[in-house]
Amino acid sequence: MESIFDYFLRPKSVAVIGASTRTGPDSFNILEVMRAKGCRAEIYPVNPKTKEILGFRVYPSILDIPAEIDLAVIATGREAVPELVRQCVQKPVKGIVIITQGFADADAEGARLQEMIMGLVSGTGVRVIGPNTLGVVNNFDNFLTAFVNVPHKASPVGLVCQSGMFINGHAEIFGGLGYAVDIGNAADIGFNEVLEFYGRDGRIGVIALHMEGIRGGRRFMELAGEIVRKKPVVVYKTGRTEEGAHAASSHSGSLAGEDHVYEAAFRQAGVIRAETFDELRDFSKTFTIYKSAPGNRVAVVTFTGGGGIALLDAMEQCGLVPARLSPLTMEMIKEIFPGWLEVSNPIDLWPSVMKYGYERVYLPVLRRVLEDPGVDMVACISVAHSVPGDEAAYVEKFILEAARMHPEKPVALWNFGSARSSMAAHVEQRGPVAVYPSPERMARSLGVLYRYHRHILERGTPAVETAGPATAVVAGLWEKRSALLGEEAMNILGKAGIPTVRGKLARDLEEALEAAGEIGFPVALKAVAPEIIHKTEAGGIRLDIRDPEGLENAWRSMMAEVGRKVPGARVDGVLVQKYAAGGIELILGSKRDREFGQVLVFGLGGIYAEVLKDVAFRIAPVSRAEALEMVRETRAYRILTGARGQEPADMEALLRTIVALSELAASNPEINEIDINPLLATPGGVVALDARII
Amino acid sequence: MESIFDYFLRPKSVAVIGASTRTGPDSFNILEVMRAKGCRAEIYPVNPKTKEILGFRVYPSILDIPAEIDLAVIATGREAVPELVRQCVQKPVKGIVIITQGFADADAEGARLQEMIMGLVSGTGVRVIGPNTLGVVNNFDNFLTAFVNVPHKASPVGLVCQSGMFINGHAEIFGGLGYAVDIGNAADIGFNEVLEFYGRDGRIGVIALHMEGIRGGRRFMELAGEIVRKKPVVVYKTGRTEEGAHAASSHSGSLAGEDHVYEAAFRQAGVIRAETFDELRDFSKTFTIYKSAPGNRVAVVTFTGGGGIALLDAMEQCGLVPARLSPLTMEMIKEIFPGWLEVSNPIDLWPSVMKYGYERVYLPVLRRVLEDPGVDMVACISVAHSVPGDEAAYVEKFILEAARMHPEKPVALWNFGSARSSMAAHVEQRGPVAVYPSPERMARSLGVLYRYHRHILERGTPAVETAGPATAVVAGLWEKRSALLGEEAMNILGKAGIPTVRGKLARDLEEALEAAGEIGFPVALKAVAPEIIHKTEAGGIRLDIRDPEGLENAWRSMMAEVGRKVPGARVDGVLVQKYAAGGIELILGSKRDREFGQVLVFGLGGIYAEVLKDVAFRIAPVSRAEALEMVRETRAYRILTGARGQEPADMEALLRTIVALSELAASNPEINEIDINPLLATPGGVVALDARII
Repeated sequence: MESIFDYFLRPKSVAVIGASTRTGPDSFNILEVMRAKGCRAEIYPVNPKTKEILGFRVYPSILDIPAEIDLAVIATGREAVPELVRQCVQKPVKGIVIITQGFADADAEGARLQEMIMGLVSGTGVRVIGPNTLGVVNNFDNFLTAFVNVPHKASPVGLVCQSGMFINGHAEIFGGLGYAVDIGNAADIGFNEVLEFYGRDGRIGVIALHMEGIRGGRRFMELAGEIVRKKPVVVYKTGRTEEGAHAASSHSGSLAGEDHVYEAAFRQAGVIRAETFDELRDFSKTFTIYKSAPGNRVAVVTFTGGGGIALLDAMEQCGLVPARLSPLTMEMIKEIFPGWLEVSNPIDLWPSVMKYGYERVYLPVLRRVLEDPGVDMVACISVAHSVPGDEAAYVEKFILEAARMHPEKPVALWNFGSARSSMAAHVEQRGPVAVYPSPERMARSLGVLYRYHRHILERGTPAVETAGPATAVVAGLWEKRSALLGEEAMNILGKAGIPTVRGKLARDLEEALEAAGEIGFPVALKAVAPEIIHKTEAGGIRLDIRDPEGLENAWRSMMAEVGRKVPGARVDGVLVQKYAAGGIELILGSKRDREFGQVLVFGLGGIYAEVLKDVAFRIAPVSRAEALEMVRETRAYRILTGARGQEPADMEALLRTIVALSELAASNPEINEIDINPLLATPGGVVALDARII
Repeated sequence: MESIFDYFLRPKSVAVIGASTRTGPDSFNILEVMRAKGCRAEIYPVNPKTKEILGFRVYPSILDIPAEIDLAVIATGREAVPELVRQCVQKPVKGIVIITQGFADADAEGARLQEMIMGLVSGTGVRVIGPNTLGVVNNFDNFLTAFVNVPHKASPVGLVCQSGMFINGHAEIFGGLGYAVDIGNAADIGFNEVLEFYGRDGRIGVIALHMEGIRGGRRFMELAGEIVRKKPVVVYKTGRTEEGAHAASSHSGSLAGEDHVYEAAFRQAGVIRAETFDELRDFSKTFTIYKSAPGNRVAVVTFTGGGGIALLDAMEQCGLVPARLSPLTMEMIKEIFPGWLEVSNPIDLWPSVMKYGYERVYLPVLRRVLEDPGVDMVACISVAHSVPGDEAAYVEKFILEAARMHPEKPVALWNFGSARSSMAAHVEQRGPVAVYPSPERMARSLGVLYRYHRHILERGTPAVETAGPATAVVAGLWEKRSALLGEEAMNILGKAGIPTVRGKLARDLEEALEAAGEIGFPVALKAVAPEIIHKTEAGGIRLDIRDPEGLENAWRSMMAEVGRKVPGARVDGVLVQKYAAGGIELILGSKRDREFGQVLVFGLGGIYAEVLKDVAFRIAPVSRAEALEMVRETRAYRILTGARGQEPADMEALLRTIVALSELAASNPEINEIDINPLLATPGGVVALDARII
């Protein structure tokens, strides 16, 4: 076998340790569930208190089993687990699924026990899934370790989750599963290893993740970035909010982290985020059913004009456009339309159906529309009152027939009415047509399908940027200090290729006058004081100083104001800088995240920056293309490109600076945080006016 | 009968004009549909070509019917309609439903025919629903005018719509209907009349609207503002986007208008907007099932920790908070929890159920939680694999039982799994429990339920502000001019009680010097030139001028710059104003909308205002409370209240100014548009620096 997952997902032999003698309804008996599933593995129950369960011979311990064991499943009280794991290692087995709860997900004692277990397997080659897990499901080969009856419905979806609910509800949530791994507390095997396996496995076509928190975020990005070029990865990330994140820490022991960091990581890796549970359902289904999406031009074929309008609204919000029908298509439809009805898209077939009946109208129009080179997808709208088999099922029959003839163009259906869900199931079982319960969900799904095929599969740059060797500009500068301010920080930026304003640190007025003479007027003064965070509010800034007298005045008034506003503030000196008038104030920074490394932030600066929160995040380092995407996400983009007739700022210089900062941050592990505030953008370039490195 | 709707919804006699001889499947025969519905009205088919249809005696014309007719339903070709309407008026009938399409929804000929019809009924007292409609449904008294078979499922929902799809799909979309009126093109009867009727009708508990565009928006706000104090009004507004609005104009002939105007109107009137079709479903159901919501503290009772976390995330985004369980509740739950599991909310009952079984755990916990005074609502999470009747239905049985004991506290269920929708239907048929298919939809619905009971029902101010008598400050000022700029505009604002900067219009430098002498330095100069929209970009502003020499310099440099940047611009003069340094630049304005009257806009000003779009809209006039709500919606609020340690601006002065502007705009019909830009807010008050009135 080539992968550890072969032992977890299709073991030849499995020991069920803690097999229960209770059987029947509500007994949660793994043996019973395995047998119901039709598992082909040899099953060896272990329980010192009995000789036989459900006809299986029971062994007192795993060490008593007279056969090789691929997989051990442990479901006992938590106190017994370490000794049982020790026996599994001694046996030895290849993998262990620890179903038992009450470890890092619970109290300090649980965390200690989990650590003990990991110490026992460490270095032995024995791998662990869990604890606190439903284990694995393999619907292709009829294997599972769950203690509840899980529907058996195979599909190309590979699931990694941190909650059994996704396994338990998979038939409805994902329309079935191929493999599922509930990593539980992820003490050993985590997202990345399963993801890598699914990426290689030919039977998995869509990867779905339920994530509360990840360890090894950076590796996740690299892996996912590669995999999405072959198959879509959809993630439902919970623990997004404060309350949710808190609950996640006691559910799977996960550190949920900050949501904007995950958001940036998913975006960069090309992982599709399901914002809601419904989207998890919809996107999984959409990618399971459709393998291509030639474009975003949608023909809407409807029985309701009102529904068509709702769908157009939703399409516009999801990057889809109404297809312009070709003259040939228009001509064909005109023939069956009443004279007063203009042919347009949405194509409202109701008046024609009332006149000619379903049969003569629906399929010919669908076929014509699908043959139209200006149409990339077809979105149908219909009402479902009767269950399949009745005459009203005609429309769905035609939709299936047309979809089968044009597998390259997605044909989808939004239906409503009393038989909506049974009709949806009926259609989806019979052919390549996804059925959605609302215009918004249809549009979101087809929009994501289009974006995946257009942007994720087609992008030419490496999936995820990797940091180069350390630029080593920071080395030796720290010497016990935790922060570099002003000039020192600016020097480092300068070495990293980031343009900085000319300036000198002055300890007193005399040095300031000297510095101004060197730099040339006009200059600006900025107080350098560790206690002062917002210089403007503290009175620690003077701009546009034109001559020595002005400088003297400014110096005195600034010192007085700072002393008044921040009593007792220690002013280490004053930065004398070349004054640059005009331009757009930006902020650019980077901050270390435990799992993903340096997280870049870019946005509009100025005194309202904190309130406006016009910022975008990315995991460093970034390419020029990613930097541009980042800038485009903010409203600052329109200002930089010359809103209201201003001359545009130098975008290339800005992108170079973002890339340079991202590389500086990513390649110097000593750096925890960099802030350039403000970064001034003008038509002639960009320049950092002040900075701070921690 | 007291209302025209009595004749439409429960006529004693109905004439079906254009009754078809085609019957059976796909014949869309109204007579057949009426008979199937069990209509109690006397039915008189009219068709000159036959004597009998389905056993009914058929009359050649409505004038030949030997009985009084309450309602006529016309379903013929469009050309025949005017003459048939003339006969209905002659008969006379009380109401006419015109089902025929192809009027204002179609071409110019259709618009002409519709106008002709309205001319025929005008002044006769005969009222019209349609044309282009499915007509009406009354599920309480078994009447309808639809030509398709519509499910018969009565509920307290009253629907007004502009598309038959909502009638057709009502059983699934709204869980049934009481009354429905499809107003179609709304040539005569529109939203407001039906809304008023539903507001008074005791059998209607929830009003649902599908709206493409409305006429009489102002009246709608007043009506809805009163009705929402008795029953919730939920609206699904389509034609929101450019494509959608365009399609709406040819579907129901509606002018969809600008979405932000509708958004403001709904908000002010307390109308609940369903952003999606799913929300239309969810909110209608929620308000049908729950009559109260004592608070927003939710206890989550779950079988899945992972699901609980997803729900917490969703709750936080919808204004719901996890309830803090009382010591008594904690104690009771602790008894059945394993020792390592901390009692918290979400309450994960899975480990307890595995140990003690469903029966001994679920109902006692639910009852205890519902008796907890710190709990306002209970949100349950469960998986549904089996259909009702099987043992797995236990949980739902307990939920229903607990909910019935505590009708004052909403108990809701999010379920998933293969039997999700059938289990949901099973539960909702049996008791006061709404079942949602996702955590986000459950949280959105309960959040809206809470907001309705907390904010809409409890608010003390008049529902919708009405304009006072005209302040007449504008009268006589216009004399063929279309716009008032600078000083003239400021004078009007001043008369309306809005503080304006002291200033004088100067035609030449000499006048400017004189004005500055009067006003006192420092002053600012602003070019008054009709062609110049953005003064800053055109170089038409000079600030902080401290003395006569400075003024002379500034005058010359400004004239030169304006001449260079806007060649040929006619400068009518220069506004000399007191210069006010510092402060926060805001914009405040108002613009006339065809249906809703003056629409106020408030937001952050300054040169980035257009890009940041940090604005809120309201229909004028507004109260102080609405003005405050409006300011709070913008990010400017945090700046005004002193973000980053600045002294807060004078909020009361700002609110007075917003109210004053809203009244000025609403009470002077000559005004089309007012713009104050900038309105400067400081700790000492607010002041308009420049304005424009059109």
